[in-house]
Amino acid sequence: MPIPACDLTLSRLGRRATAPSITALMRTALETPGLLSLAAGFTDNASLPVTAVAEALRGLAARAPDLGFLQYGTNAGRPGLRVRIAERLLRHDGRTEEAGDSVARAAWAERVFMTNGSQQALYLAMQTLCDPGDIVLVDRPTYFVFLDLLAGLGIEARSLPVDAAGRIDAAAVRRLLSAMRADGSRDRLKAVYFVGWFSNPSGRTLGADEGRALAAALRAEDCMVPVIEDAAYREMGYAEGAAVVRAGVLSEPAWDGFPRLHAGTLTKPFATGLKIGFGVCDHDAWRAAMLHVKGHQDFGSGNFAQALLEEAIAGGAYDAQLAILRLVYREKRDALHGALLAGGLSARGWRWALPEGGLYLWLEGPAGLDTGGSGEFCRACLREGVLYVPGELCHGDAPPRHTVRLSFGVLNQEGLAEAGARFCRAAAGF
Amino acid sequence: MPIPACDLTLSRLGRRATAPSITALMRTALETPGLLSLAAGFTDNASLPVTAVAEALRGLAARAPDLGFLQYGTNAGRPGLRVRIAERLLRHDGRTEEAGDSVARAAWAERVFMTNGSQQALYLAMQTLCDPGDIVLVDRPTYFVFLDLLAGLGIEARSLPVDAAGRIDAAAVRRLLSAMRADGSRDRLKAVYFVGWFSNPSGRTLGADEGRALAAALRAEDCMVPVIEDAAYREMGYAEGAAVVRAGVLSEPAWDGFPRLHAGTLTKPFATGLKIGFGVCDHDAWRAAMLHVKGHQDFGSGNFAQALLEEAIAGGAYDAQLAILRLVYREKRDALHGALLAGGLSARGWRWALPEGGLYLWLEGPAGLDTGGSGEFCRACLREGVLYVPGELCHGDAPPRHTVRLSFGVLNQEGLAEAGARFCRAAAGF
Repeated sequence: MPIPACDLTLSRLGRRATAPSITALMRTALETPGLLSLAAGFTDNASLPVTAVAEALRGLAARAPDLGFLQYGTNAGRPGLRVRIAERLLRHDGRTEEAGDSVARAAWAERVFMTNGSQQALYLAMQTLCDPGDIVLVDRPTYFVFLDLLAGLGIEARSLPVDAAGRIDAAAVRRLLSAMRADGSRDRLKAVYFVGWFSNPSGRTLGADEGRALAAALRAEDCMVPVIEDAAYREMGYAEGAAVVRAGVLSEPAWDGFPRLHAGTLTKPFATGLKIGFGVCDHDAWRAAMLHVKGHQDFGSGNFAQALLEEAIAGGAYDAQLAILRLVYREKRDALHGALLAGGLSARGWRWALPEGGLYLWLEGPAGLDTGGSGEFCRACLREGVLYVPGELCHGDAPPRHTVRLSFGVLNQEGLAEAGARFCRAAAGF
Repeated sequence: MPIPACDLTLSRLGRRATAPSITALMRTALETPGLLSLAAGFTDNASLPVTAVAEALRGLAARAPDLGFLQYGTNAGRPGLRVRIAERLLRHDGRTEEAGDSVARAAWAERVFMTNGSQQALYLAMQTLCDPGDIVLVDRPTYFVFLDLLAGLGIEARSLPVDAAGRIDAAAVRRLLSAMRADGSRDRLKAVYFVGWFSNPSGRTLGADEGRALAAALRAEDCMVPVIEDAAYREMGYAEGAAVVRAGVLSEPAWDGFPRLHAGTLTKPFATGLKIGFGVCDHDAWRAAMLHVKGHQDFGSGNFAQALLEEAIAGGAYDAQLAILRLVYREKRDALHGALLAGGLSARGWRWALPEGGLYLWLEGPAGLDTGGSGEFCRACLREGVLYVPGELCHGDAPPRHTVRLSFGVLNQEGLAEAGARFCRAAAGF
């Protein structure tokens, strides 16, 4: 007798979700012996703060004899850590007086919730704002895992128009919104998203005037939808105080009246294995909805990792680590940049800006080049033994074919020099 | 000029998600000075394994000088930890020979994925299987946070019929499925869920024959929908080897052909603050979909917590901690049970079974009693200074009003004695 077939049909979401685009790149990396990856978004291993983590554990054990730091935490996260985050944010936003005031700090801490990396904050934001078919405006280029996330939820990404220098073009934003109103798609627009500092992938930091012009354009078009500012790299500027360059959306008056979410991470600039991010949201009903969904997803992020971070921030180890990382990543940037120059890439028509923070170089190749994952250029790079992220993955729509993201997070200086040289050798044939 | 109103409408999911039902209880606990909580599902603080965690960190630092354990991990989780889980599962399922065979272990490890507590595995399962309006069959009583999760996703819970002893009634299951076919709701049935061992809330372990009869009933009704077995308390049986009492669905031939997910946790029986669970799924397309969605939600659970657990399992500290917890929770169970007996609760018509594992006593009060959160009995308990979970929260449908879940996880023996006495004093008035 035949066994009856199993009775499983995936949900609409289950059918829509496909492998994150990075998965294919990771598989290629694993399957190619000797490959040097300039694609991986991982961080520097050698500088990981094992001593600081061990000291934080000793500190917790000594000062919290009830061992509560190894116990479940709450859904929103550790109250003390949320206050620390509030304090840092106020300082980064230039509000030093409030940062020193416990009442102001407490008021901000109420808006903070801890997540499994900043990515969970982005996912919760999209789950609670968008139904399938809705639209989100994204910067151009933008964080490609966010695009995967949108696709998985059935949300359409559209690029914020930019000028030739890559700045958001506020007049073009107004025209876009106007056209969306005309074609009926404006009603489906539910949020605006951008990476605020040292962007993945472009390395750009949104200018204060640029942000204000975007807010003004949205306001003028009567389109005060929620704004999501991704601050994953904010603390990874190479110059001390680089995080302060621009106030975030929560402190910028141009965004007053918009529902705002500022999403950040404590672990990209410390120890990524701890995987703790946060959201700060000033719209009560939206934040409550995100917390309810988080309650269903996991009812709280790892309390132990949060406790270690709280201890490391309080004791100064966190800022000491930031000071180290500033030097480490600046040197790594220089190593890759130097290798590309030495390899003659500029002379072949490639262009890139030197970022002042973060982990990435964003390259524009010669017009007409196709850097896509199944193209000739990509194969030439693999033959030379180097991997990159095709820039086309980083666009909500109308992707250009000739851009590339190179990460200098993982490889050491020697590896970066060699990987850069390989990239240039591959590029020489195009 | 008036400021234009912000333009935020929550998504359908965002509007549906409400505070997890435990939230109101937690608020009550916080707002009532001197309250002893028999409601909280937290674990024992005093026995938390701070030494084992510190030793695991030292071991990792010594044996992994590249510090990769503080780096990002992969979406599915640490390969070595997944093999350890495979090995434990095979042993718990009585397949000791395969547990000792590296090929068999590796094959099972491929099906394992790490999550933010077992709850995330449950959430991913429901996201990928069910659209709003779909139906899931749940045990009776069942894990009430799972019910919250279902409600948040717009999924309807229906109870698996049980007999007077609380065992799943397979004949009644067949009648239910038949009725669902007749009324057209059978097509919306997408999964069956139950807590397999030392259940939250009932303390019951599903019998091997009971599980087989359920599988046979579903098969006979041509209803081989995915089955989800919640193993959160499997390793928390008080008798050594209690986890082996019944093979899980993955090893039970009666479930062959059903898509199967076994969801467990490594941290409830170790240190809940590490928050690492896992799913083991033998249906490739379903597992792939869950991993894709996880890639969007967080792209991997905390690698550091996973590394600590891998180290603690490999070095024996994990099992040593289990041996301690078996004694701790048996004694705590006895303390609460003793207090209820001493307080004369049985004489007042209350009934409860003595569980052989887990953290909960499940009480049936006198017929007609209303233990609901807004009722007289609950208020009497709060006046006495004790909190419990109303049993009505733990039912997919048709909740009885006279049941109560008491947790002995958090309070120490003295606290349990006092809380039990308070509960009995409150009950004396009804």
